[in-house]
Amino acid sequence: MTHVLIPLYDGFTALDVVGPYQMLALAPTVTVELVAEDCGPVTDDCGSLTLVATSTWFDHDSPDIVLVPGGPGTAQALHSPLVAWLEAVHRHTTWTTSVCSGSILLGAAGLLNGLRATTHYRHLDLLHRFGATPVADRVVEEPAARIMTAAGVSSGIDMGLRLVELLTDRLTAEAVQLWTEYDPEPPFDSGSPSRAREEVAAQAAAWELAARR
Amino acid sequence: MTHVLIPLYDGFTALDVVGPYQMLALAPTVTVELVAEDCGPVTDDCGSLTLVATSTWFDHDSPDIVLVPGGPGTAQALHSPLVAWLEAVHRHTTWTTSVCSGSILLGAAGLLNGLRATTHYRHLDLLHRFGATPVADRVVEEPAARIMTAAGVSSGIDMGLRLVELLTDRLTAEAVQLWTEYDPEPPFDSGSPSRAREEVAAQAAAWELAARR
Repeated sequence: MTHVLIPLYDGFTALDVVGPYQMLALAPTVTVELVAEDCGPVTDDCGSLTLVATSTWFDHDSPDIVLVPGGPGTAQALHSPLVAWLEAVHRHTTWTTSVCSGSILLGAAGLLNGLRATTHYRHLDLLHRFGATPVADRVVEEPAARIMTAAGVSSGIDMGLRLVELLTDRLTAEAVQLWTEYDPEPPFDSGSPSRAREEVAAQAAAWELAARR
Repeated sequence: MTHVLIPLYDGFTALDVVGPYQMLALAPTVTVELVAEDCGPVTDDCGSLTLVATSTWFDHDSPDIVLVPGGPGTAQALHSPLVAWLEAVHRHTTWTTSVCSGSILLGAAGLLNGLRATTHYRHLDLLHRFGATPVADRVVEEPAARIMTAAGVSSGIDMGLRLVELLTDRLTAEAVQLWTEYDPEPPFDSGSPSRAREEVAAQAAAWELAARR
């Protein structure tokens, strides 16, 4: 069995967690566990969804896979013991991975130095601070360093499927894709900063400013 | 404000809940609440993800939107008070909606009679039992009846964005799509039963049989 840990912290983004969780948890040889600084409830950035951590990250010193979600809560998580734990456990993982601004936490742990990496489109420049080269791809793999990073929020679904393929085989990954009917038909074509209209980008940016107040 | 309720029950599928949750919760004029028969933790079909219900469905008699997730747990939920509650509150909703086999619960509540509806591809035939016409589309809208149903698991993301458009406006919905970078790039082309290879479909079906044992 492959054991995947997803660390939670206050202010995580829910789909960053549950997108890849769903893909991984359906694979028969993979188990996923939600962990946090303490066992118990952890609430998301919208304040309306609470997940339960069933153990603490301190309980685990050699997980196979670590998957770090993003969210506005990364700003506080940067000053939590999560960063030192990520640095310590990365020595033992098969892959250490992130979704969205979760890559900022990998960066703070010193894990992105000299690597290509991605994050939420609004935070790509921050990656320079950690010695990483920002790449505006949906999923960026650095196999020699055992680091994989995904772009904003929903990108974690694509990364989750890729991880299932790497941890099991292509047939299993395709069966997970079928079972979850992941044959997306977004009703609009605004999912990428390279194609969204200017007023759409301005609206999304305004939310970010509002969240920071 | 528009108030969205998502009823949980043991054995729900996590992404059925969190895909549309994420789209709706980001819209500034929408609040989402997770409810269940009792307040407290409710665990998903994989047994490894627990969400917290912050109120009971009995606490709400006129929600604006109800969104019912699917999962193997629908088999038990069919015999719970959820079905009668759905029938009662539908009189007051703007939209009553489902993801995946959540439509079976709408059907049991008598809400699909004479309508077009969808569900997880493996359960489409079941819709006949409730007087509905199965449609293999990703999202099926019946505006006169205020019913919207989505196909399997990840389809709820597309439905969530469509609901945001209907509840707010297109600009807001596109900004949510951008913020969540919902510009999917599935690594394989097996997300639809019409295109998945035969051995992929057989693998996914074998899991279903395993889950039923």
